[in-house]
Amino acid sequence: MSRIVYVNGEYLPEAEAKISVFDRGFLMADAVYEVTSIINGKMLDFAGHAARLARSLGEIDMKQPCTIAELEAIHREMIARNDLSEGLIYLQVTRGVADRDFAFPDVEPSMVLFTQAKNVLNAPLAETGMKVISIPDIRWGRRDIKTVQLLAPSLGKMAAKAAGADDAWLVEDGFVTEGTSNNAYIVTQEGTIVTRDLSHDILSGITREAVLRFAAEAQIKVEERPFTIDEAKAAKEAFVTSATTFVGPVVAIDGIEIGDGKVGATARRLREIYLAESLKSAI
Amino acid sequence: MSRIVYVNGEYLPEAEAKISVFDRGFLMADAVYEVTSIINGKMLDFAGHAARLARSLGEIDMKQPCTIAELEAIHREMIARNDLSEGLIYLQVTRGVADRDFAFPDVEPSMVLFTQAKNVLNAPLAETGMKVISIPDIRWGRRDIKTVQLLAPSLGKMAAKAAGADDAWLVEDGFVTEGTSNNAYIVTQEGTIVTRDLSHDILSGITREAVLRFAAEAQIKVEERPFTIDEAKAAKEAFVTSATTFVGPVVAIDGIEIGDGKVGATARRLREIYLAESLKSAI
Repeated sequence: MSRIVYVNGEYLPEAEAKISVFDRGFLMADAVYEVTSIINGKMLDFAGHAARLARSLGEIDMKQPCTIAELEAIHREMIARNDLSEGLIYLQVTRGVADRDFAFPDVEPSMVLFTQAKNVLNAPLAETGMKVISIPDIRWGRRDIKTVQLLAPSLGKMAAKAAGADDAWLVEDGFVTEGTSNNAYIVTQEGTIVTRDLSHDILSGITREAVLRFAAEAQIKVEERPFTIDEAKAAKEAFVTSATTFVGPVVAIDGIEIGDGKVGATARRLREIYLAESLKSAI
Repeated sequence: MSRIVYVNGEYLPEAEAKISVFDRGFLMADAVYEVTSIINGKMLDFAGHAARLARSLGEIDMKQPCTIAELEAIHREMIARNDLSEGLIYLQVTRGVADRDFAFPDVEPSMVLFTQAKNVLNAPLAETGMKVISIPDIRWGRRDIKTVQLLAPSLGKMAAKAAGADDAWLVEDGFVTEGTSNNAYIVTQEGTIVTRDLSHDILSGITREAVLRFAAEAQIKVEERPFTIDEAKAAKEAFVTSATTFVGPVVAIDGIEIGDGKVGATARRLREIYLAESLKSAI
């Protein structure tokens, strides 16, 4: 089945979903995005994604394409038109179309949405756990803004594949920043969850925020601070969070088994809590 | 007049020049580019740009879209169809169209070219000199690859405009890397040209290579090493080079006049030599 794609007010068959080559999203990566998970036809944490989109746009002085209510309506229309039960909705906003110039033009933003049907609830890696490698973090200095400048994470994913792993953890100045497209966590031998504190160095994950809240509610100690790969290799558990992996256990780093090399109890429990709570509040 | 734009084998009116929203150039900045100057309908240093394109593609494991001979023929066709006497040709190659995934798909690359008519020979800033500000270099770690991840340079250009300047010089670890879209140089009080040495930190400018060669031929001493903004402010002259500015004099940095605050003799001379030599070898 051909998907229906949203492009600047129109719902089009995917083969007709095109944008101008003069769109700054294409020419200059002058664009931000969000990905929202869909389960049972409902959106998980739409409000969080809409709020982060607004923040990303504000940080690079880009116009809001529409109101949050309109954005929600478009997401709902996309779920309906694509008969999407489980998967994700990808949303991208660009500065718009203008003749190429480094200076920002005063034009209307472009907005594109498409869906991807996907088994997010029972993803195979949630059962088996994922293997990661560590690589240098060569991304730009404003990773808190969710831009489409994704060549470094893509290269990271390819390096992981080449090494027989599933993903890469990025290391800067000796400390882990995050995964290629997720926040990174370890659980110490004492049972404390450690994840890097928020700054320009990492994305403020919507799932990260929820999982840390659920962890606190479950009386699990949380430390927000940088940690090293060596500390991670010696940890009891490791995991990642993202809007589409939720809580994804990590069972090996650079070929070293973490804990007993199996999916950890904390990661498993947090995934269950996250999914139960998120499904309750899904809209 | 509507321009004719090249998109994947077709020559289209610019209003019809579109690409799929699933093109990785649009979704992930998975694309590289080149800009070639045109004077009197002829290309300046086409061979240099074609060689750098091939290198950029190789560095990110992207397929060559066509042979260099074919690329040259397309450039010529664009000059003819757009009746372009003076200006530039922009060329972008992306990894191609595929459903969104961080991992590279095995698809054919996309290629887009468009022209911009522009007064490059007698650009106003070549006469008056440009004012630059210094800002932190927050770009990714592989600036030697000419990717479309250009949000940081765009933000830099906007910061310059907001400060009443023309451009920004980027500073990392205390040293100037380059300008937002050009290589940066100073001329010391002793008359030595200093410009940063090549590495992953800066783009290997086609014009940089030519200008350094012409400088050596003119018996001007050249040092390729990092320099600080303080060193630049105390210099006799400052200038930039790029494929479309050629040699562009810099007359102020952060509000401090360089030398006597006027276009320097070395920059003026190098611009003349560069243009004379480049026009001779233009094809």
